[in-house]
Amino acid sequence: MARLVTLTTDIGWAYAAQMKAVLYRTLLPGSVVDLTHDVPAHSVPEGAFLLQYMAEGFPAGTVHVAVVDPGVGSSRAPLALATADGSVLVGPDNGVLWPLASRLGSPRAVRLDPERVVPGRPPSATFEGRDLFAPAAARLAAGAAIEQLGSPFDPIRRELPVPRGTPESMRGEVLHVDRFGNLITNVPTEWAPPAGARLRVTLGSQSERILSRARTYSDVPKGHAAVFGSSFGLLEVSVREGSAARRFRAHTGQTVRFRSRRDFGGPADPAQLARAT
Amino acid sequence: MARLVTLTTDIGWAYAAQMKAVLYRTLLPGSVVDLTHDVPAHSVPEGAFLLQYMAEGFPAGTVHVAVVDPGVGSSRAPLALATADGSVLVGPDNGVLWPLASRLGSPRAVRLDPERVVPGRPPSATFEGRDLFAPAAARLAAGAAIEQLGSPFDPIRRELPVPRGTPESMRGEVLHVDRFGNLITNVPTEWAPPAGARLRVTLGSQSERILSRARTYSDVPKGHAAVFGSSFGLLEVSVREGSAARRFRAHTGQTVRFRSRRDFGGPADPAQLARAT
Amino acid sequence: MARLVTLTTDIGWAYAAQMKAVLYRTLLPGSVVDLTHDVPAHSVPEGAFLLQYMAEGFPAGTVHVAVVDPGVGSSRAPLALATADGSVLVGPDNGVLWPLASRLGSPRAVRLDPERVVPGRPPSATFEGRDLFAPAAARLAAGAAIEQLGSPFDPIRRELPVPRGTPESMRGEVLHVDRFGNLITNVPTEWAPPAGARLRVTLGSQSERILSRARTYSDVPKGHAAVFGSSFGLLEVSVREGSAARRFRAHTGQTVRFRSRRDFGGPADPAQLARAT
Repeated sequence: MARLVTLTTDIGWAYAAQMKAVLYRTLLPGSVVDLTHDVPAHSVPEGAFLLQYMAEGFPAGTVHVAVVDPGVGSSRAPLALATADGSVLVGPDNGVLWPLASRLGSPRAVRLDPERVVPGRPPSATFEGRDLFAPAAARLAAGAAIEQLGSPFDPIRRELPVPRGTPESMRGEVLHVDRFGNLITNVPTEWAPPAGARLRVTLGSQSERILSRARTYSDVPKGHAAVFGSSFGLLEVSVREGSAARRFRAHTGQTVRFRSRRDFGGPADPAQLARAT
Repeated sequence: MARLVTLTTDIGWAYAAQMKAVLYRTLLPGSVVDLTHDVPAHSVPEGAFLLQYMAEGFPAGTVHVAVVDPGVGSSRAPLALATADGSVLVGPDNGVLWPLASRLGSPRAVRLDPERVVPGRPPSATFEGRDLFAPAAARLAAGAAIEQLGSPFDPIRRELPVPRGTPESMRGEVLHVDRFGNLITNVPTEWAPPAGARLRVTLGSQSERILSRARTYSDVPKGHAAVFGSSFGLLEVSVREGSAARRFRAHTGQTVRFRSRRDFGGPADPAQLARAT
Repeated sequence: MARLVTLTTDIGWAYAAQMKAVLYRTLLPGSVVDLTHDVPAHSVPEGAFLLQYMAEGFPAGTVHVAVVDPGVGSSRAPLALATADGSVLVGPDNGVLWPLASRLGSPRAVRLDPERVVPGRPPSATFEGRDLFAPAAARLAAGAAIEQLGSPFDPIRRELPVPRGTPESMRGEVLHVDRFGNLITNVPTEWAPPAGARLRVTLGSQSERILSRARTYSDVPKGHAAVFGSSFGLLEVSVREGSAARRFRAHTGQTVRFRSRRDFGGPADPAQLARAT
């Protein structure tokens, strides 16, 4: 049975097409699924976040290739990881693969050996995605074990940033700014008070804002900001039908602090909140 | 025989990838076709226009999923529509599906019941695309009837905006601004005088411009604006190898008026027209 | 055996979706591969470059469709080219297809005859991609010979721009600006001195800059510019984890000159080079 190969990159469609050319030399039509080629350039943490949350739900056995690789050509290792569910991850050893791998369970790793993956054809110094990761993925999707393509290796084991604090004062960071300008943080939704409460929100070194905790976008007036439980199970700061990133000049990696007090609780009427500008 | 599932969204590639993860848990490789994930954010009218014109030509029996859904989590219904040709449409009941459904013929509708689509797993309040529409599409593509997934429902029946007027004075609106900055209107090409005529064009509250009605881009000099019959069968205002949207500061939803007079008719020499800036 | 059909366009996803609708009326799921729909609007030279380098590695027999077509509707011919390896190229006769076709070998050409491709249905004057190229590609992928769809034709035989000069003074142009802002030139990497040398680089009419020739991005400090051998086998001017296009205000089509002198040779320490701003 043919396995899917997913691609998650910051290299854009044109370079990714060269990877597809390699993959389709041996794989069946339709085997390659584009997750995104729009990861912010060189942003390993955002790539790691996106890969974990986009790729996690794919069928067991899928081969996930990630190319967010500012260190291409350096001594950082090219990696393949096999997980408990039979999935395989392929990409640079810079942390982009690890959060997904550890969620899929018990990863074992090899350092890809170019001579074993593409005998006699050393990869270019600037595009291992095409010259090493794609041919490795093609062979892994066809059933090869990672051990056939490299030697055991101890990879960088960096998880996504961990939020800290108490339910009264939670400190995290912005992991992702989505297409709408929503700010996805690493603070779990279950840490926050229920919808209706108010939260004091501080982004980076900006001054504090008071926002309501809302259940869904339609619970707040258009153009108003609020704190939602995102579909990732993480708190997000959003502006209904607007961009929180633009309004708050926020960006990935920025610290975020949510504070609640008992006297802030109780059902708030979002319409009474000052329009946060 | 496997059916195709198309995706038309404003949610961007990363969120759409989570929908593909759900779909590929059961569907065959290659079943999912990305129509676009670039619908302007929250623009239901532009989503409805794009869905109708992009999806219309797909084989009968295709399942079309649209996620342009500013009201996610509100009481607006989640919908599945089955049409006369055996196609199925899945998405929010906000009008985004209706223009395509009515073109495909005799739509019957159900309100999707989460408990029947994904028993025991209530969808998130912020991303029904992943938690309800994608699993519903997977089952419909596998052959389920819409009636198995919900109860009969009377959906919003909003067609695309209808143009008005006479051949001498046509009043419509801009339905879509494409990647080139062409302004696609809702005025049928057959309403307009033939190529060579001149038209007085008014966008929104701007002052009137005199543009030639041309058959194809190469009939006007580079950088000149003219009125063309678009490939949609609708009039479009375009600048050859330039952007009409930028030049005229035009946008989706803007009103547009085309007026012609008998003494404006006859073959115009586009090169003699003042360069419209 | 089903053949793949690739799409390389400047028309954006929504228009390309209409081509997919046509293709999937007869082709198997997964047959259509999006190479890119982001070719800069109306840029035939950049389309020709991207098509050659993205599509070259696909399996022999693939049908490549390119729609970068500022002259649609004019008298320029619609073309199909068959190459020595059994691949087929479909698109306008404006030079976008030729560089790939001549690399794939011994192209023979026909001018597509709409009446033979889609009997009784003349294509629109503004979107032959949907009305002529897509149906032709569907029939060619199903096994038709190009001669069944048109008559022998002598196409425009324009190769990519050829670089000139000596190893001491090489003159070329920027063929492509990639997503990172790297400037891909047409000067072959093997013309340049080895990594460690210094090069005097002149872009367009700008003043000369002295940049080091580096092997890979990680060999230069973050934010520094250097000259690399790109994965295309061509010299590129790049800023590590930055945009050379922005820093140097460079663009596709701009001339570029690389000069080296013996006393410029030898291993340079990039950290000692003035930060090129």
